[in-house]
Amino acid sequence: MEKDLVIGIDVGGQTTKCGVVDARGNVIAQTVIRSDTHTDVAPFIDELAAALKRIIADANAEGRIRGIGAGAPNGNFYKGEIENAPNLTWGGTKKIPFAKMLSEAMDGIPVSLTNDANAAAMGEMTYGAARGMKNFIMITLGTGVGSGIVINGEIVYGHDGFAGELGHTCAVRNNGRHCNCGKSGCLEAYASAMGVARTAREWLEMSDEPSALRSLDKITSKDVYDAAKEGDKLAIRIFEYTGKILGQSFADFIEFSAPEAIVLFGGLARSKEFLTEPILKAMNENVLPLWRNKVKLVYSSLKESDAAILGASALAWEL
Amino acid sequence: MEKDLVIGIDVGGQTTKCGVVDARGNVIAQTVIRSDTHTDVAPFIDELAAALKRIIADANAEGRIRGIGAGAPNGNFYKGEIENAPNLTWGGTKKIPFAKMLSEAMDGIPVSLTNDANAAAMGEMTYGAARGMKNFIMITLGTGVGSGIVINGEIVYGHDGFAGELGHTCAVRNNGRHCNCGKSGCLEAYASAMGVARTAREWLEMSDEPSALRSLDKITSKDVYDAAKEGDKLAIRIFEYTGKILGQSFADFIEFSAPEAIVLFGGLARSKEFLTEPILKAMNENVLPLWRNKVKLVYSSLKESDAAILGASALAWEL
Repeated sequence: MEKDLVIGIDVGGQTTKCGVVDARGNVIAQTVIRSDTHTDVAPFIDELAAALKRIIADANAEGRIRGIGAGAPNGNFYKGEIENAPNLTWGGTKKIPFAKMLSEAMDGIPVSLTNDANAAAMGEMTYGAARGMKNFIMITLGTGVGSGIVINGEIVYGHDGFAGELGHTCAVRNNGRHCNCGKSGCLEAYASAMGVARTAREWLEMSDEPSALRSLDKITSKDVYDAAKEGDKLAIRIFEYTGKILGQSFADFIEFSAPEAIVLFGGLARSKEFLTEPILKAMNENVLPLWRNKVKLVYSSLKESDAAILGASALAWEL
Repeated sequence: MEKDLVIGIDVGGQTTKCGVVDARGNVIAQTVIRSDTHTDVAPFIDELAAALKRIIADANAEGRIRGIGAGAPNGNFYKGEIENAPNLTWGGTKKIPFAKMLSEAMDGIPVSLTNDANAAAMGEMTYGAARGMKNFIMITLGTGVGSGIVINGEIVYGHDGFAGELGHTCAVRNNGRHCNCGKSGCLEAYASAMGVARTAREWLEMSDEPSALRSLDKITSKDVYDAAKEGDKLAIRIFEYTGKILGQSFADFIEFSAPEAIVLFGGLARSKEFLTEPILKAMNENVLPLWRNKVKLVYSSLKESDAAILGASALAWEL
């Protein structure tokens, strides 16, 4: 039987999404399981394999699966392992041979693993806003800041498979915010959903400026967005600041790999009406003249619900 | 006749070095001409072609030249042009079709062009300290700071051919030194030979600390090195500061492309006895834990006189 389908899996901290995908990028069957009900990986792999077999049956795809692609936090493409992923309940500091375990549980179907941001970049290149681009940088603005770098049409993995940690480049050199990674001043500490909420809390404390955000118990980046939409001046300035920090960093990224575009993806990227202008301003002010106003800033064009599955599935076609 | 030789050319602001190179990386004939006696490129190309024909005759290499590789400031690999090279007397803001002109003057021998730092990286990968490495970053510490980035065994050119301007990433975000590129706070403004001399002048003005450097009319980075060798405390601190700035930036570069090594090259790299320790300290303090103490810092192992020619010649083998 022709092996004309692949499976894409997006392993997140709370849930794992998986789907059967055809060559045109249609998700023809999908499901979601919880990622966080086990502290050991073995029962999770069992549940995942059972879920995959269900959607294979749903799609009438027995014998037609060419390969499985998975994106996961700290997934290592070279080794097929998940290493040091504290956000996964079964992750911790262990090295988990994820690709090998899943392939065995799936009767030998080959499994390719990468990190979630690289999977998103693959998806964007194959099906989304970066189609036809050979050089771009994908920045995922979610709870944290991730990145997938594409050079000459290929994901950059580097010497050890972990390249592309742009969320942990330095945005603020001195007295920067503490970051979850243990360092200070990382881009992620400012320009993630978490960072935006933190900016809001800090700024509310620093002045008595009126703002709709003051009435909230716990502020999320979504709250800041909603307030900005209502014209809240402080909320709008928070996005201006966030965009400036992003644009400054993007200028340095451009000087590294001279991409055709920076592609933004993830929850915080939905605030584009407030982010685009300050990002472009800071990016063009800080980049060498030869790239000024030349590098595009584009937003993911994939349906958010499919993007992660499609990205991971794109990896499987290369198996 | 077998085409078993190539020519490497290093175009610098003052001089242009060229050599006939065999497959083992032996420079079997070489010469140097002035680069700065013309304001128009045509007579320079004529002189260069005449010089090449002389060394081809010296090497008894008529009919054996497979190709010519040239490294030049702002040389663009994709277009074969030198664009906006103010350091070349015949450069200015024009676009010069260097590869095409030289090939025509050399009876159709193909010419490949790249920038000088990329040529150095090619040379280091083919003949030098980076032999066998597929992922490394070459940093040239000369009058300025240049860079050549190698990923998966290939020079990174990016979308437009100008990738790898790491000397113009931001080292000091606020109130940074003005850089020749028009921006402020660039790595080059601190960590080049020029930058070291500038640090010396600034620090001498800021205090009355005794230093051998005070007696000099015009301070060069070589003077700072000589003073440091004599135990001059201020001079040693200047290198500590320079190394710290470099190490901080290298940490961000590692987060981008996860190289096996950073390779240092150029005049200022000769001060390695004073630079290595502060670079490694700052690099390892500022990089994500997963790369701490894992990325090598190595120094060019090519004879300086041959390195530039060899680097450019490596490009010619790919023609």
